[in-house]
Amino acid sequence: MLTLYYAQGTCALATHLALEYAGAEYQTVRVDFKSNEQRSPEYLKINPKGRVPALATERGILTETPALLQYVAQSYPQAGLAPLDDPFQMARLNEFNAYMCATVHVAHAHGRRPYRWADDAPAQESMKKKMPQNMAQSFVLIEQGMLQGPWVLGERLSVGDMYLFTIARWLEADGVDIRKLPKVHDHRQRLSQEEIVRRVVDSERA
Amino acid sequence: MLTLYYAQGTCALATHLALEYAGAEYQTVRVDFKSNEQRSPEYLKINPKGRVPALATERGILTETPALLQYVAQSYPQAGLAPLDDPFQMARLNEFNAYMCATVHVAHAHGRRPYRWADDAPAQESMKKKMPQNMAQSFVLIEQGMLQGPWVLGERLSVGDMYLFTIARWLEADGVDIRKLPKVHDHRQRLSQEEIVRRVVDSERA
Repeated sequence: MLTLYYAQGTCALATHLALEYAGAEYQTVRVDFKSNEQRSPEYLKINPKGRVPALATERGILTETPALLQYVAQSYPQAGLAPLDDPFQMARLNEFNAYMCATVHVAHAHGRRPYRWADDAPAQESMKKKMPQNMAQSFVLIEQGMLQGPWVLGERLSVGDMYLFTIARWLEADGVDIRKLPKVHDHRQRLSQEEIVRRVVDSERA
Repeated sequence: MLTLYYAQGTCALATHLALEYAGAEYQTVRVDFKSNEQRSPEYLKINPKGRVPALATERGILTETPALLQYVAQSYPQAGLAPLDDPFQMARLNEFNAYMCATVHVAHAHGRRPYRWADDAPAQESMKKKMPQNMAQSFVLIEQGMLQGPWVLGERLSVGDMYLFTIARWLEADGVDIRKLPKVHDHRQRLSQEEIVRRVVDSERA
């Protein structure tokens, strides 16, 4: 049995969705960011990075969304959530996931946790101010090419779609007008109407 | 025939090493960062992100180091550069590569390219100032657990080692004392003495 450690509104949603689409047997444990539980001694034993998601498996604990997404896709190949046997298409998927992780999520984090990269308040304010511009620029690249349409990899739904959906939900709060990104907007709409997605999003809210 | 676009001293070295360890047929094209060639209209057609590495394949151009590393490992399985058929060990490798890409390389970039995340000079200086601390903290996690030893995944050399080697070469310039990281130091020493590594590093310098 897998255990997903998550917090509401975080990138852990991508892995949560992947587990549900894969038909995996899993349970969830909510980490309370409001009380800073992710920095508690108990949680740091699970994930020394003090972040979510973390996925406890029979062989050990795994972290980092791109790794978890591929792990789920590879552990439940019958669900068809990644083009596992095609090195080029896998690279397209991993390229997308790496961009979400190292560029887009990082851009977003400068608006929420700028203290990671500078100690003084004016510098942190400056980062917050620039964040919407960086988010918008990242999403222009996604809109203009990386999202092939209708899904990230074209005709085939993959774990990359779950990652895009998760981060695209942050756009309004990050000051980006999603209506200027019609492909991204349509993608988010379509996924938000899927029964699996509604169930997972509701369960995180509950 | 594959074509690797790289610049000297960048993370493109990891993919360059992987291609050589894989025994791939490839050529290299140097992108001149001094003249800002990575932002030229010609190069932006190759990689709209204006970064290296980029790998031109018969089916299209791929970017993002974690994606390229897996692509090389999966395209040349006989080289044994990744535990391709073991979802858990692949996740360990991808977890490592995601951390290098989204946390460690990002920490480093705040010392070199802080203008990506804030427009004013004092904020950029503040980011530069904090960079050595973030690099040191990242490498403590690597030293204390992520680098299983002697290689990243334990007994088996993988593309994760090429990524670690590449970024560990930046430590002195980033103000981190590698002698306080004995496992990382030993790892870098061992790889730097391998004939393949010397050949690739020399070719990038030439």
